Amino acid sequence: MEQRLTLVTLGVGDIARSRRFYAALGWQEIEPRQDSVAFFQLNGIGLSLFPRAELAKDAEVADSAAGFSGITLAHNLRSEAQVDALFAEMVAAGAATVKSPRKVFWGGYSGYVADPDGHLWEIAHNPFFPLDAAGNVTLAG
Amino acid sequence: MEQRLTLVTLGVGDIARSRRFYAALGWQEIEPRQDSVAFFQLNGIGLSLFPRAELAKDAEVADSAAGFSGITLAHNLRSEAQVDALFAEMVAAGAATVKSPRKVFWGGYSGYVADPDGHLWEIAHNPFFPLDAAGNVTLAG
Repeated sequence: MEQRLTLVTLGVGDIARSRRFYAALGWQEIEPRQDSVAFFQLNGIGLSLFPRAELAKDAEVADSAAGFSGITLAHNLRSEAQVDALFAEMVAAGAATVKSPRKVFWGGYSGYVADPDGHLWEIAHNPFFPLDAAGNVTLAG
Repeated sequence: MEQRLTLVTLGVGDIARSRRFYAALGWQEIEPRQDSVAFFQLNGIGLSLFPRAELAKDAEVADSAAGFSGITLAHNLRSEAQVDALFAEMVAAGAATVKSPRKVFWGGYSGYVADPDGHLWEIAHNPFFPLDAAGNVTLAG
């Protein structure tokens, strides 16, 4: 299996609400838009928003859940100030504050917000994981 | 917010078990290894395995959950035959079959497996989402 990922799909309860949230962050959808799914071109991968019930049906799993999904998505930035700024921008766009940004034990600076469906985004500055000009990360040991 | 993602973290119940699973797929960790976390360099992003309880603690959410996480990760390939081959490879590595590969309504070919913690990987061929030589995707409208 090649060491890569193509698409992250977030199951959402109200696709119009989720579209508004990500649009408020400045994200632009692939055109032409489809009613039932939204696609965003990210850095070499894609992110899609798809009705949660339809996603469960597609995967042939039961659409029942409570609690922590066990998955977080991180958006890393180049400084602590950028973390604070994006955190505030996400909350202004309707994200829920989960953990305010702070210095963390591994030597970085990080906070968490939840999107309208509770999907957790970590907003972080990690001085050990450099970002290139395009925002791609190179993990360091 | 730049339209990109840095890291996907999968919360795992037994990090040794998860390391064995992803190693069985041929994935190589960033060295030097740490006991408590495994990092894999993917295509411009990273994937980490981290104890689920620690991940919940890091995000300051309760570590309780049942059912569908509401998130899927897709690994796209260039043909239906490649989907069948990777699907078999993942099951041989210990993944659970969730949905056997088949032609799907949107014009592609797709199946789902679950990793040792139930994280859903869709293994798919999507003729509308071309992959470049490095495996990066360009989403088409």
